[in-house]
Amino acid sequence: MAGEFELIARYLMRDERREGSQRETRGSDAFTALGQGDDCALVVPAPGTQLAISTDMLVSGRHFLPDTDPYGLGHKALAVNLSDLAAMGAEPRAFTLALALPNADPTWLAAFSDGMYALAAEHGCRLIGGDTTRGPLTLSLTVFGEIPAGQALRRDGAREDDDIWVSGVLGDARLGLDLLLGKWADRLDEADRAAAVAALERPTPRVALGRALRGVATAALDLSDGLVGDLGHLMTRSGLGARVLPDALPHAPRLAALPREAALACMLAGGDDYELCFTAPPAARDTVAALSARPALAGLRLTRIGTMTRPDDRPEADRARPTFVDANGGILDLPLRGFDHFDAERTD
Amino acid sequence: MAGEFELIARYLMRDERREGSQRETRGSDAFTALGQGDDCALVVPAPGTQLAISTDMLVSGRHFLPDTDPYGLGHKALAVNLSDLAAMGAEPRAFTLALALPNADPTWLAAFSDGMYALAAEHGCRLIGGDTTRGPLTLSLTVFGEIPAGQALRRDGAREDDDIWVSGVLGDARLGLDLLLGKWADRLDEADRAAAVAALERPTPRVALGRALRGVATAALDLSDGLVGDLGHLMTRSGLGARVLPDALPHAPRLAALPREAALACMLAGGDDYELCFTAPPAARDTVAALSARPALAGLRLTRIGTMTRPDDRPEADRARPTFVDANGGILDLPLRGFDHFDAERTD
Repeated sequence: MAGEFELIARYLMRDERREGSQRETRGSDAFTALGQGDDCALVVPAPGTQLAISTDMLVSGRHFLPDTDPYGLGHKALAVNLSDLAAMGAEPRAFTLALALPNADPTWLAAFSDGMYALAAEHGCRLIGGDTTRGPLTLSLTVFGEIPAGQALRRDGAREDDDIWVSGVLGDARLGLDLLLGKWADRLDEADRAAAVAALERPTPRVALGRALRGVATAALDLSDGLVGDLGHLMTRSGLGARVLPDALPHAPRLAALPREAALACMLAGGDDYELCFTAPPAARDTVAALSARPALAGLRLTRIGTMTRPDDRPEADRARPTFVDANGGILDLPLRGFDHFDAERTD
Repeated sequence: MAGEFELIARYLMRDERREGSQRETRGSDAFTALGQGDDCALVVPAPGTQLAISTDMLVSGRHFLPDTDPYGLGHKALAVNLSDLAAMGAEPRAFTLALALPNADPTWLAAFSDGMYALAAEHGCRLIGGDTTRGPLTLSLTVFGEIPAGQALRRDGAREDDDIWVSGVLGDARLGLDLLLGKWADRLDEADRAAAVAALERPTPRVALGRALRGVATAALDLSDGLVGDLGHLMTRSGLGARVLPDALPHAPRLAALPREAALACMLAGGDDYELCFTAPPAARDTVAALSARPALAGLRLTRIGTMTRPDDRPEADRARPTFVDANGGILDLPLRGFDHFDAERTD
């Protein structure tokens, strides 16, 4: 007598079907989760650890285009949540999925599920519960990660004169969105167009970097809304200002095909980068630089883009924004107002 | 530069605003949660406990009427999740909220938030994280409860000859929905109409009962989709059959104002009752009956409605449904097919 959507829920619970629904399974670090089929999943974090929890909701037409490739959507829905765990330095362990679907299309579901499980398997992260219902396409994931007690990377630990670092490159995801919306196509070759769209649709959560930054970074967060807004959160929480060198922002060469202002907008306020932004004292520069060489980080680029400063004496409205400077320390007047709209579109 | 929906998220995080966003707070049983404002919430269950986790998604027009009173919706969204914790015997500790809203209406939000926080306060359950976005009205909550290791009430522990019990009364919530849809109004007085609608819109999660049933019940679940379907899950998971006496089903006197078949449909397949259904050995009858007298249970009615039996030898399609019997053990041929549609409407 199971309804259509109850069957979907069972279909999605692959791990549990494979492992048997009532056994207690044991993760690599003694994190345990009892199988599904009851009203709740039961979880026991390993002794001496804290459970990091994050929740994100993705709505069709707002966070992704309605015709998005379902494999990519399955990947991305989990990736953006794993990115929150990465930002805290937590080890992904499990997640729940609540899914509203307009209809039960088996082809769509199989692809969505494949994308989600491929990334989950990569990170040893298990689906432990969920809910499936009919409704406008909406996904809500809650992820669970473990972290040794007291070692979580927070947003409030940055200190004056700390360096500001970002991982990877910025702006490709926004470029990918622009391409899907019909912009810039004539300026880029096919490989660059594909790479930018892939950056948007298949972001890589920086889990290994987050783990490696425990005890090294003084503060960290992930870049989901764009550097200006996200670094602003770190500034506010740490009670500091920040100076950023736009010329230092890491980007793929393809971004130079755009007008400079558009390229800057992609890097500073484009959103969806899912890179980590973190601070560390200047004395840790060699340590940070050496992280890229670790096998787990696979040569991930780490770039210094600025410095944390004393709290700002600008008007309050501007305090949560970095000051942009050139290589000589001269203040740049970037057309930030232009980013407001950009940002307002994306921060909710 | 915070967007409208980011401001909403901050508004909803009342506890955190009140307590300061960076302090570590300590619950009554050593469950700890670090405040919000980072990419994740951090949680530490008390030693010797398991964390029970459940997730539910509610979609406007499907799980509630679009014009539902927002206070009631705030209450119910949390209540249905707490009911899952109750079914496992877990103590509510915390929850996350993902919310898609078509627009930011402060009056609606204030009422929704009041309803949610009133129930949360009653159960000492804190909002520890969330996400707010523009979209078709959709809520997804994930709740966290603590339970002493090994004491969780499961669905798979029922034994042959165990009594089947339910709490409270059945069918009022479905009657309430029928009333909102324009049915039966002429058969009931105003007080009964109001009580039925309240049962639908303000269900009481049976948290104290779940806690009291630890070590007493052999299996338990909450009644969200209707007794027939939900007891079916318990039968399947426990590998048993069940006999139920329709004449024993507890209901408010007002339900007798409906034609008998409609009243039975409300009780057996109406859904949204959020009462607990549990099994216990006949030797525990006095113990169970005595629970109602505990102050925490406030006289909650507990009714024996049937018996778990050997696994069914009926055709497979019928095995997950109870057999209905009269007081003499005679098998009743209830028009169950009629409930299929009823049920299919509500189980997803």
